[in-house]
Amino acid sequence: MWTQCWIDYSNLPKNSQAYAGYFSALYVDGFKKDEVISTAYGELKKAAEGLYGCTPEVELEVPESGIAFIRSEDESLGKEGYRIHVKDNVAFIEAATSAAVIYATFRLLALIRTSALTPDTDITEVPDNPIRMLDHWDNMDGSIERGYSGNSFFFEDNDLVINERTTDYARLIASVGINAVAINNVNVKDAATDLVNDRFIAKVSRLTEIFACYGIKMFLSLNYAMPIEYEPASADPLDPAVREWWKHKMDEIYRAVPGLGGFLVKADSEGRPGPFTYGRNQADGANMLAEAIKPHGGIIIWRCFVYNCQQDWRDLKTDRARAGYDYFSSLDGEFADNVILQIKNGPMDFQPREPVSPLFGGLRKTNQILEVQIAQEYTGHQIDLCYLIPWFKQILAFETYMNNDPESDTTVAGIIGGRARKGSTGGMVAVTNTGNDENWTGNDLAAANLYGFGRLAWDTSLAAEDIAREWTSLTYAGDAEKQTADGERAGDLILRLLMGSWPTYEKYTAPLGIGWMVKVHDHYGPSVEGYEYDRWGTYIRADWEGLGVERGPEGTGFALQYNGPNKEMFSDIEKTPDELILFFHKTKYTHVLHSGKTVIQHIYDTHFEGYDEVLKMQKDWQKLKGLIDERSFANVSERFERQAANAREWCDIVNSYFHRRCGIDDEKGRTIY
Amino acid sequence: MWTQCWIDYSNLPKNSQAYAGYFSALYVDGFKKDEVISTAYGELKKAAEGLYGCTPEVELEVPESGIAFIRSEDESLGKEGYRIHVKDNVAFIEAATSAAVIYATFRLLALIRTSALTPDTDITEVPDNPIRMLDHWDNMDGSIERGYSGNSFFFEDNDLVINERTTDYARLIASVGINAVAINNVNVKDAATDLVNDRFIAKVSRLTEIFACYGIKMFLSLNYAMPIEYEPASADPLDPAVREWWKHKMDEIYRAVPGLGGFLVKADSEGRPGPFTYGRNQADGANMLAEAIKPHGGIIIWRCFVYNCQQDWRDLKTDRARAGYDYFSSLDGEFADNVILQIKNGPMDFQPREPVSPLFGGLRKTNQILEVQIAQEYTGHQIDLCYLIPWFKQILAFETYMNNDPESDTTVAGIIGGRARKGSTGGMVAVTNTGNDENWTGNDLAAANLYGFGRLAWDTSLAAEDIAREWTSLTYAGDAEKQTADGERAGDLILRLLMGSWPTYEKYTAPLGIGWMVKVHDHYGPSVEGYEYDRWGTYIRADWEGLGVERGPEGTGFALQYNGPNKEMFSDIEKTPDELILFFHKTKYTHVLHSGKTVIQHIYDTHFEGYDEVLKMQKDWQKLKGLIDERSFANVSERFERQAANAREWCDIVNSYFHRRCGIDDEKGRTIY
Repeated sequence: MWTQCWIDYSNLPKNSQAYAGYFSALYVDGFKKDEVISTAYGELKKAAEGLYGCTPEVELEVPESGIAFIRSEDESLGKEGYRIHVKDNVAFIEAATSAAVIYATFRLLALIRTSALTPDTDITEVPDNPIRMLDHWDNMDGSIERGYSGNSFFFEDNDLVINERTTDYARLIASVGINAVAINNVNVKDAATDLVNDRFIAKVSRLTEIFACYGIKMFLSLNYAMPIEYEPASADPLDPAVREWWKHKMDEIYRAVPGLGGFLVKADSEGRPGPFTYGRNQADGANMLAEAIKPHGGIIIWRCFVYNCQQDWRDLKTDRARAGYDYFSSLDGEFADNVILQIKNGPMDFQPREPVSPLFGGLRKTNQILEVQIAQEYTGHQIDLCYLIPWFKQILAFETYMNNDPESDTTVAGIIGGRARKGSTGGMVAVTNTGNDENWTGNDLAAANLYGFGRLAWDTSLAAEDIAREWTSLTYAGDAEKQTADGERAGDLILRLLMGSWPTYEKYTAPLGIGWMVKVHDHYGPSVEGYEYDRWGTYIRADWEGLGVERGPEGTGFALQYNGPNKEMFSDIEKTPDELILFFHKTKYTHVLHSGKTVIQHIYDTHFEGYDEVLKMQKDWQKLKGLIDERSFANVSERFERQAANAREWCDIVNSYFHRRCGIDDEKGRTIY
Repeated sequence: MWTQCWIDYSNLPKNSQAYAGYFSALYVDGFKKDEVISTAYGELKKAAEGLYGCTPEVELEVPESGIAFIRSEDESLGKEGYRIHVKDNVAFIEAATSAAVIYATFRLLALIRTSALTPDTDITEVPDNPIRMLDHWDNMDGSIERGYSGNSFFFEDNDLVINERTTDYARLIASVGINAVAINNVNVKDAATDLVNDRFIAKVSRLTEIFACYGIKMFLSLNYAMPIEYEPASADPLDPAVREWWKHKMDEIYRAVPGLGGFLVKADSEGRPGPFTYGRNQADGANMLAEAIKPHGGIIIWRCFVYNCQQDWRDLKTDRARAGYDYFSSLDGEFADNVILQIKNGPMDFQPREPVSPLFGGLRKTNQILEVQIAQEYTGHQIDLCYLIPWFKQILAFETYMNNDPESDTTVAGIIGGRARKGSTGGMVAVTNTGNDENWTGNDLAAANLYGFGRLAWDTSLAAEDIAREWTSLTYAGDAEKQTADGERAGDLILRLLMGSWPTYEKYTAPLGIGWMVKVHDHYGPSVEGYEYDRWGTYIRADWEGLGVERGPEGTGFALQYNGPNKEMFSDIEKTPDELILFFHKTKYTHVLHSGKTVIQHIYDTHFEGYDEVLKMQKDWQKLKGLIDERSFANVSERFERQAANAREWCDIVNSYFHRRCGIDDEKGRTIY
């Protein structure tokens, strides 16, 4: 079996009885009794049974106490927005669509379970992002690329798996407002190509319907080169035979799976085929698919993760960080309306710290999705604790200076949410962190990233701390209210660990935005020069004097891809924020940061601090022994043990490496090996 | 099909007709007509047919022209020695045993095929080493640990393979005097444990018989922990039940396989079980097996490759180089007579340059085998050309100062050949370089190492160049006599490439004896700090000032494990030979070597030179186009292409790494990235 994470209704809040009345009856007005409404009702029944051992009766009139689903004509709610308000003893959910009722139902349950529902409650929520998506990198053989919580629950032995867990997964992600999911790895290989063929299409259709009950559109990753194996024997996007082939293919797919959201495509990247093979550009490739899918209302999500992965380390001018902008910015405005470019948060690849990709702000006439990664590929493999929402908040808040219009919100959040350019669409996607482990996410606490991503994608204004507090309360319920021997509320302790975890992780790993000091392939644990002489374009360029990649105007020129003040800031070593200085500039060990410390002393200090902080977190966690669920306590204890070993390796190796590099001693005389 | 390497009788020497007469008849006197004599006759027939299209007739009297096998009573020939002399038109082979006739027959054929047999020929050869062995690291699944020439020809799908290739392999190695072979990996896992059980024992026996026809004893690698799975449920060497179990086991094995030579054991090393588990020492373990096998005349070859492979890189005192001596020297004299310790040439692990292991000279009352590796694990994976015999010659010539007896030969060669201590036995073993590739050794030229190892183990006084010349003449036969456009004899060109190859390989890889700058696990290609913070005890300790491991009296004290003048030499940085300075001493980049160069300039110079030399070798090889066999030409051309790419990586990465380390420019201003 598997846990229910933050929607475990057997996990009773402290004052659970206070809300029992709402679960006595359900009244539905204005909605057709479709599958989605039934699903919402089903969720209420499940909650009622778990929390109170009762079943809400469906009544024909507004009950004395209960919950009411009311169809609203308020256009400002849009397709997914809702209003929750309390009148007398009835909690009203008003929404224009049944999908919105699902979101509202889960929200109402969360308010109840965190004792946040009051007689005065009257909230209206409309999601900030049209698309709130999870990308699975699940392979048909059941493995998960960069998966740290077991194998796939979608695939096994080159076949699809549909069972009770599928529904529980849909519930879990719908409960935080996710409305799209791509179930297979963007690296579409072997059997996965057949997901759109007769062989698997019936099961794909069934899966789509399960997700649809929760208001979620299912997507597939597509093999761009597919027509090569068929009559056209080509994948040239300008070849009429290829276009015709895709048109027929899409017709065939949508006949079988009318509810499919569309496709995710990784082309011309890391060995994947793409339009470059035929001398065409990325817009040619995307638009061909978009044209074929358009009659069916589907969309094409096209990844911008295109770069040369056969770089020569000797080449100091070529810069992988430039690649996204170089390939895509000149195509701005050329993509079809039903194409959305999916852009990784940074110009490299999900490091613990990177600048925001200059494509945000560089593309002015193109739909954009922000891609983040909650699978902790470079942030501790769901062994190390790393609550990523504070980091995502910074990314969303980044001002791109896309235009001079004071009316438009040109932060990353504004661009992807459609507030920077009228008529645009977009959203947020996370490479997800789930697998078939009992607890879904390997480390119990890593579920806060899944929860947090959904909540943040729905409402980008939420504070990372508030999200973490919600998650903690829902997950540990009544136990969160207990007190440790020190008199600290258990929930506050967990919240404290979550909030400190990303800064701590950054401290003991790669300093000041340099990134990439990780073991090759695996990406867990330190290898300072692991990628230094490799072909991936990921270098630290350390020598006896300093380290960092010069990306200013005298270097690779990457800083010039930004707009206005950002361009100036990143071009000048004195103006670049400390935390990104080594990303942008070759910097001497003796350079004094804005913090007043030299680079080398910053490296020593942060590494010692980071390791100490991990030991403290590990110790703090032990205070929860006996207070929270034993399984969860043991799970996280074991992870902290491994994190402590990892942090020690990072601390000692990074400090030794740099001490050997420059010979400058630690001011505080701590042990460097 | 597969090639016949240096015993390809279809490959005619230039003046092949001169020796036709010897193949008209065979006369045998004094020998029983056993299988070994039949095998020798079979080889003569095969040669006669290939070279001359005729068949020697067996005659009852000494023929007018032909070959005669004469049983000799000359005790100085021992069991394996022989005399070859020519009288009138008959080539006489005199030997005391039929096994010796095999060696002599192959020798005679080699003399004939290289036109070295004359009417005056009268040579007596007695092997320098009692044991001349090849160790296969072949796994039962067909893979070969550190195999660079295809899969195993002994194993496939967890079963033994016996076919025509088995016989050809026996011929090939007997032709250079090999008399022992261990067919399975020293890391005995899975099915390989069953090689001594009912499941496979019949096939093992058949294989043993095939080798016996060529005078070769077959050995197996043994799983020391085997009795754990049976009644004693222990592998404690002092437990009477375990001793009894082994006694019965050996009885059972030898009933089925009476010709088995004995067993090779890797215990307490790299995760293998051993006597340490029970608080016993290595002698306890080896002697238990020796006692059980003694009634059957078998021997136990016990590897000294015992070290802690979970070392902490932070620990500057623990030194893997010390481990062999530390574990074994105190046990000197405690091993049974039928135990031989197998000692790797250096204290680390088959690097292109290491000092000789101090166990040679440290053990005075123990049988010893020198273990070298012709599988090019750290010397280019049989992609890069690296003729290792010049290196082995240096190892054999190393004076150990084992005692003060001027009569005894206390070089490594003297110790293993039994000339340092009366009554001792020993020999040489190579971890072999063959697989089921068409040409046996991946790179055609890598066969020179197999040939050379056998010849050198037989006669340690042979010059590396003479061995290479022989191999070239036998392998390329008549083609070796052709001339390139420059007027160079093809054979001389190949000889030149072979002889220069190890020095070249050393130049472009790890400098001055430091070793280990290789990619982790794979061991091909550079990764300067690949092992620096790992658990294997293999560090280079480079910093901004210098590099090297201090192993003198102020360091780990490893240098003190040597005797007399060696101890003094290696303890003192000024006396340590240049080529080992970084093995023994933490040395500044600005330290001036005996060569007059600084360490850093030496690094730059040798790396540029090494790469240039590879390009020259590659170019030189092209001069053979059209002169030699097309397959062989293409095979080596392709390897040189890969070697050139590898050498460029090594040159550029090592030079860049050290330039970045110290900031000292190349005196000659060449490009360092």
